[in-house]
Order: sequence, then C-alpha cells, then structure tokens
Amino acid sequence: MKFCSTCGTPTEVQIPEGDNRERSCCPGCGAIHYVNPKIVVGTIPTFHGKVLLCKRAIEPRLGFWTLPAGFMELNETTHQGAARETWEEAGAKIVLGPLFTMFDVIRADQVHLFFRAEMPSADYFAGEESLDVKLFSEEEIPWDELAFKTVSKTLSLFFADRKAGRYTLHTGDVFNHTDWTESQFKA
Amino acid sequence: MKFCSTCGTPTEVQIPEGDNRERSCCPGCGAIHYVNPKIVVGTIPTFHGKVLLCKRAIEPRLGFWTLPAGFMELNETTHQGAARETWEEAGAKIVLGPLFTMFDVIRADQVHLFFRAEMPSADYFAGEESLDVKLFSEEEIPWDELAFKTVSKTLSLFFADRKAGRYTLHTGDVFNHTDWTESQFKA
Repeated sequence: MKFCSTCGTPTEVQIPEGDNRERSCCPGCGAIHYVNPKIVVGTIPTFHGKVLLCKRAIEPRLGFWTLPAGFMELNETTHQGAARETWEEAGAKIVLGPLFTMFDVIRADQVHLFFRAEMPSADYFAGEESLDVKLFSEEEIPWDELAFKTVSKTLSLFFADRKAGRYTLHTGDVFNHTDWTESQFKA
Repeated sequence: MKFCSTCGTPTEVQIPEGDNRERSCCPGCGAIHYVNPKIVVGTIPTFHGKVLLCKRAIEPRLGFWTLPAGFMELNETTHQGAARETWEEAGAKIVLGPLFTMFDVIRADQVHLFFRAEMPSADYFAGEESLDVKLFSEEEIPWDELAFKTVSKTLSLFFADRKAGRYTLHTGDVFNHTDWTESQFKA
C-alpha cells in the first residue's frame, strides 16, 4: 500500500503506538492500513463416490484441475461462499458437509477451507472460470495435473479418510499439517 | 476505499469485466481493490478444567471478558496466530488443540476461529490489551459480562460438549450455526 486509501496521501511504513508490527500509516489523516490473510472457500463435491473437479480457464494454473473454490466475499458465511463458488465454477448444487481441511498458504497470504459436499444429482456445467468440469473416481484423479498443493493434499486426505471409514479435520500449514483424530487431544 | 492504494488516484465503484460484484476500481492505473473478510484467531485455554478469560483493556467492549483472540497476521499459520494471541493477551503458553468453532460475523466482515488449548501450568499475566486475566470454572463464568457473541457461544458449546463427553466442530453463522456430529454427514 503506497497511498492512503482514505485520503490519497503517500503512506509511511511505521510501527504504530501499542503495536509490534510495521504497518502502512498515513501522515495525512492518521489512518493505519492493516493487511491480513484472505480466506479461500471451496468444496469436495461428490456424486456416487466420484469427485467433481474443474479445469481452470484463468491464471494462475490455467488448464490445471482444481476443486471448486475462490475468495470468500463480504456479506456471506463460509458455508454460503463455498456453495456459491461450487455453483459459479462447476454449475453444481450441493448439500454442504463439515469442514474437512483448513490449510495455511503463507506465501500467498491465504487460508484455504474445503468442506465435504454431496451432489443430489449429476448435474453440472463449466462456469466462466472453468474450461471443463468432470466427475473423477479415485483411480481417475489427474494427480500430476492438479492446480494447487491444498487441492492435492485435500484430495489425498479425503480418499485416505474414506478408506479408513472415518473423516477427521486436518488443519495447519499445508506442508506440515495436523490430523485431528478424536483421541489426539483430550483437554 | 476512496483512493487507489497503488497510485493515489480517486477510485470509482464498478463491476469489473468478468466479475459480478462492485469493486473499487482505479481509472488511473487500472488496479481493482478487493475487500474480503478478515480472520480472528483465538483459543479456549484450560487448566484443570477451568477456562482462562481476559478483561479487555481496549475498545470495542472495554472492561468486558473475552477469550484470548485477535486478527490473524501475515506470515503466520492459524495455529501460530491463535497461540500468539493467547501469549500476547493472556501471558499463557498453551498446547494447541483442534479447531472447535468457526463462526461468521457478517456485520463485522470477520470469521472467528477458536481452538481448544491446554495450559501446561497455571502461569499467566495480563498483556497490554488486557486489564485482568483469570481462570474461571464453568459456574464462575461471567456470562453477562462477556465481550462478544462468538465468545459466549463458543464457551456455552464448550461446556455442553464437555458434559456430553465428546467435542464436535461447530461452524457457520454465529446466530444460526451447524453442529457437525460424526453421524450427521455420511457422504
């Protein structure tokens, strides 16, 4: 942030009083501009055991496959955002399930939330941001053509949990996450 | 956002090409400024069954009691942010547990994450943003003096789940959330 978004004055990087981090501060109007991570919300839409993936029509990772997901907007819940992205990118209506993965993507300043989701029917279509949308069985997943690490990790954990017969929440750094099985934390 | 934070030109509210929402757009440099919800991370720190609360030294809700929590910063994970806030506001080291509540606060453009957490010792102190810090048994919780709806909801669900002998994840709108018991979603 080079200019104050409130008054247009060039900002200065300072540690505000009572803070312990550098922020973009405005010497004109006194505004402090905080920058924080953004939330990406998405789903793992399933129909008869197959998972719905989208082939990206936009950068980054154009042409690669991904779970439907995108930035959470103002005036919506995480649940609503995840369902909206599934509709916009994959043309699929879903019944939303529980949060399955919450992964930090520090280098992109993002937190990615993926919810399990059930498709009541096999209806779907490629939205504006997708080149193609398709249901994949576990054996058909194009592992080498997946767009993002959070997507490949979410899918591999999903299939592993399904095989184990129970789903657990997985959170933390995508490269070093924590699996929260029931027995792991008793407090 | 009245002025472009990239070049200082007054912004215009428009729906960018390929988008379906109004954004602050810069007629000077072409930048599109997206505004998205922010993440608040916190913990439910427990020691021998009691819960650690902080009396707020800052607005909003100065003088009211809260769980240690604050805005997630860049360059940290949700786990690290929750532990950092617990240290900064309550002077307590914790062993982090699983995510317990993830509540949308639409009118504040925030998503609040609370993790269960265990204190290895009863050591704690009031940080700069706290007037007091204290361990409360369930019977001692000052329900009428709690700072935020997400805090009172998280605490009441915590005690209810503890009584039931199992903790489940609770997510969605804080006024109308979903309890994700194991049996609720089978897909």
